[in-house]
Amino acid sequence: MLLGSIEAGGTKFVCAVGNEDYRTKDIVRFPTTTPEETLTKCIDYFKKFDDLKAIGISSFGPIELRKNSPKYGFITNTPKPGWSDVDFVGRIKKAFNIPIHWTTDVNGSAYGEYVISTLFNEHINSLVYYTIGTGVGAGAIVNGQFIGDLGHPEMGHVRVKRHPDDLDFPGICPFHGDCLEGLVSGPTFEARTGKKGQDIPLTDHVWDIMAYYVAQAALQTTLTLRPAKIVFGGGVISEEFLKKVRVQFKDLMNDYIDVGKLEDYLVMPAIKENGSATLGDFALALLEYRK
Amino acid sequence: MLLGSIEAGGTKFVCAVGNEDYRTKDIVRFPTTTPEETLTKCIDYFKKFDDLKAIGISSFGPIELRKNSPKYGFITNTPKPGWSDVDFVGRIKKAFNIPIHWTTDVNGSAYGEYVISTLFNEHINSLVYYTIGTGVGAGAIVNGQFIGDLGHPEMGHVRVKRHPDDLDFPGICPFHGDCLEGLVSGPTFEARTGKKGQDIPLTDHVWDIMAYYVAQAALQTTLTLRPAKIVFGGGVISEEFLKKVRVQFKDLMNDYIDVGKLEDYLVMPAIKENGSATLGDFALALLEYRK
Ligand SMILES: Nc1ncnc2c1ncn2[C@@H]1O[C@H](COP(=O)(O)OP(=O)(O)O)[C@@H](O)[C@H]1O
Ligand SMILES: Nc1ncnc2c1ncn2[C@@H]1O[C@H](COP(=O)(O)OP(=O)(O)O)[C@@H](O)[C@H]1O
Ligand SMILES: [Zn+2]
Ligand SMILES: [Zn+2]
Repeated sequence: MLLGSIEAGGTKFVCAVGNEDYRTKDIVRFPTTTPEETLTKCIDYFKKFDDLKAIGISSFGPIELRKNSPKYGFITNTPKPGWSDVDFVGRIKKAFNIPIHWTTDVNGSAYGEYVISTLFNEHINSLVYYTIGTGVGAGAIVNGQFIGDLGHPEMGHVRVKRHPDDLDFPGICPFHGDCLEGLVSGPTFEARTGKKGQDIPLTDHVWDIMAYYVAQAALQTTLTLRPAKIVFGGGVISEEFLKKVRVQFKDLMNDYIDVGKLEDYLVMPAIKENGSATLGDFALALLEYRK
Repeated sequence: MLLGSIEAGGTKFVCAVGNEDYRTKDIVRFPTTTPEETLTKCIDYFKKFDDLKAIGISSFGPIELRKNSPKYGFITNTPKPGWSDVDFVGRIKKAFNIPIHWTTDVNGSAYGEYVISTLFNEHINSLVYYTIGTGVGAGAIVNGQFIGDLGHPEMGHVRVKRHPDDLDFPGICPFHGDCLEGLVSGPTFEARTGKKGQDIPLTDHVWDIMAYYVAQAALQTTLTLRPAKIVFGGGVISEEFLKKVRVQFKDLMNDYIDVGKLEDYLVMPAIKENGSATLGDFALALLEYRK
């Protein structure tokens, strides 16, 4: 049996096929252009495989995932030119009449990391996955299910307590200024310092400011969801940076509740090479197939 | 069939019996003294009723609710003198060998409000209940279930963006200073102004500051959980105050996501006279009985 995965990002798409053990058999990457061209490439790719039983799609958003909505399966009001109001699932479903699982990119990644934890015999039933990259977003699993009754989480836009050495920075979110995304997404490095994050050494104080905000995101998530684990991915994240985040998290929590060893609680993805969403998609496709 | 409810608060206990329609048949209130005396009063009360099939308990905390913990059913490390490490469920179970549902006070209230919404034919499957009183806490239902893998939520201790006119107030949380509880619990009125909240007119600017923080709590909850409804109870909350909260919420959200009419989204309890937890306990007791 083969399962398909589409990880639909704002800059690139990753299509893959795998088996029931979630092993990737084939994978292809291409840039995100127009919906017509990009979705056609997806369809042409999967046409090469017989025996494809189901597809898991995890997409950039915002997306409609309320099954009772006429726009279910659509990318909705995205700022990405041309992609607003695109019937993603409908288009794929027309080409392949097989079960399709539809969720956000970060939910797909969260599910991949959740499945891997379970395979490693960690008996968890909740996990949150944050991406800190061009934007900031999070996916969450609670009691083994995705959360969001009215829609998917948008944790990137919460407000946080401002760092005393960062009070003058207005933030860069076009909607909110200094929401979390407006303060810690990759492009905030350029906005603050004129330099890209990858060119600023971790000894620079700006990294302490970033760690303070990411630690608050982890704190909010912990106090709200009490998940078993919080995974951080995206270009801004590195193991060295997470060390700083853990120090600030410990300080903010002040032993109020115990989350176990921080090295096991605030972690990088267990699945390497940005493969979390692909694995998650396979697992979600299989669930959909078995329904 | 009769169902029991114990709402265990830090200052008073409310015990009640009701039927399968969640109608209260009898109710009694007494102050919280020692665990021995208080739990004996509960037991003596319920002994008067034959045909009691199950009891729902919603308790102040922190409490242990992981079923696989040896301390399941305990109040754990509470600051309330004498109540740390008390085997609440064990004590009740010894007196009545019937099913017992055990959760936090705010979870009990959340469940009561959730059940009432459902009875009123609102087809929701998520709801968050905040109490803003002597302390600040929240209970949450997601996909029809309580959340919290490692323990119950502690949303009262998140950090928020400070109001520009409140930057000098250090907050009163003994653990965190200016966490949400340290900034908006009832006693913060005295700490800021020397006067009790009930004696400060809603036209006073301190209420705008309070509304700004409560709106951020609602925003964090919305962006993280996307619940169908957020209910606010506790001494600090009034319909007039919630009007201010809605204005600040709208401003902070800046049309980023649609939550429907704010008058229906950020609301006071539908169940009057602080009865949310009692009704929730009845419903949870019934669930436990039917298991
Ligand atoms: N080592 C680094 N340190 C800090 N920021 C980085 C680093 N590497 C990449 N970035 C930033 O991360 C962002 C890209 O994030 P990434 O997760 O790779 O892509 P996307 O979010 O677009 O999928 C850019 O703003 C980039 O400048
Ligand atoms: N009208 C009011 N405005 C502001 N604060 C109030 C008001 N009424 C009561 N409070 C405050 O609420 C707190 C009590 O909250 P309450 O929910 O009644 O009890 P508890 O949280 O102890 O169960 C006290 O700090 C009290 O000063
Ligand atoms: Zn924003
Ligand atoms: Zn606190």
